Amino acid sequence: MISNNQGLVEKIVSEIVKRLLSYGDEPLVPIGVSNRHVHLSKEDLEILFGSGYELTKMKDLKQPGQYAAQETVMVIGPKGKFENVRILGPVRKETQLEISISDGFVLGLKAPVRESGKTQGTPGFILKGPKGSVEKEYGVIAALRHIHMPPDYAAHFGLMDKEMVSVEVNSPRRIIFHDVLIRVSDQYVLEMHLDIDEANAGGIGNDDLGKIVRD
Amino acid sequence: MISNNQGLVEKIVSEIVKRLLSYGDEPLVPIGVSNRHVHLSKEDLEILFGSGYELTKMKDLKQPGQYAAQETVMVIGPKGKFENVRILGPVRKETQLEISISDGFVLGLKAPVRESGKTQGTPGFILKGPKGSVEKEYGVIAALRHIHMPPDYAAHFGLMDKEMVSVEVNSPRRIIFHDVLIRVSDQYVLEMHLDIDEANAGGIGNDDLGKIVRD
Repeated sequence: MISNNQGLVEKIVSEIVKRLLSYGDEPLVPIGVSNRHVHLSKEDLEILFGSGYELTKMKDLKQPGQYAAQETVMVIGPKGKFENVRILGPVRKETQLEISISDGFVLGLKAPVRESGKTQGTPGFILKGPKGSVEKEYGVIAALRHIHMPPDYAAHFGLMDKEMVSVEVNSPRRIIFHDVLIRVSDQYVLEMHLDIDEANAGGIGNDDLGKIVRD
Repeated sequence: MISNNQGLVEKIVSEIVKRLLSYGDEPLVPIGVSNRHVHLSKEDLEILFGSGYELTKMKDLKQPGQYAAQETVMVIGPKGKFENVRILGPVRKETQLEISISDGFVLGLKAPVRESGKTQGTPGFILKGPKGSVEKEYGVIAALRHIHMPPDYAAHFGLMDKEMVSVEVNSPRRIIFHDVLIRVSDQYVLEMHLDIDEANAGGIGNDDLGKIVRD
């Protein structure tokens, strides 16, 4: 028994050490670029697609359990609309639309730069699906740029949940993003999320690497 | 005569000193945000709008002699188009389309990040006006971010024509742009040009101030 346990412990320690070593000396972070998308509550999903409807997974996202659905909706603002806006699953407690500031000009609304979930007081919009429409009184944000970070990475580089850092990207249009929120969870895979405006301002594509530098 | 000349010299020196003092201790630069636009050659202008046509000024731009024309054109790429793209005057030696990287996705072409005028080898596109169309074999860029700088400002802060600097902006999405080209000319008014992607990535609006920091 003891020798069995010891083998297990050694295996786990060895895996942790291997993972830490794979982080290297520099706090590098792969970047994921988010296009406009919507998260739906179960209630809104059923209004838009019909009673009892469930999302169909099209593609897994990098964060465990998150996926792009096959379904899309039309998003309508005071001045314009987007057809075929991707729904990300699974359903959430509250419906949330995430757009870039550029998208906001097309829709005719001003999405504040906010952390996901903090939608109180944001502008309203309309969603239209094959079975119905919902008019939301609030719920649109330009996502605050952030890093999904597993705890061992955070510990390795002395970073903390909710800390704000700067990230430098040596892309064709070299850039430093200040005010990048760190979110630490053992449910996360290491990934920095930027929107399309931010990615294009830096000439950045998916899986390009950013480097965390302190503010 | 001598006293007259002395009066003139004193006046000029006093004005220069006043202007230098107005620059302050920090190399601050007001920002101008450029939406997609086109510069036309005289030849292309006449194909699009008719023989002998001349542009009508709508609004002076900050750089002396430059203006937004009342006229617009349709820009057509392999995958999409933009109607009502503003023409900037006066006419130039060569036609040049300036778009953001986001615009490139809509048009279905990849505009390289280039200095104005360096259009060789860039993708082609079609322009359509009220009297005709032109198919350009090249001429579209995503403008390299740059600062128009008068010589006295450059001298005051020890900056040089063609130097690359970084610019920090303390906007709602604080950011540092690296690889910003300085262009010095006595024809210029101090102004940093960003495109819409870059401005939105930083939550930056017209006349916001950037601060030059060395690379």
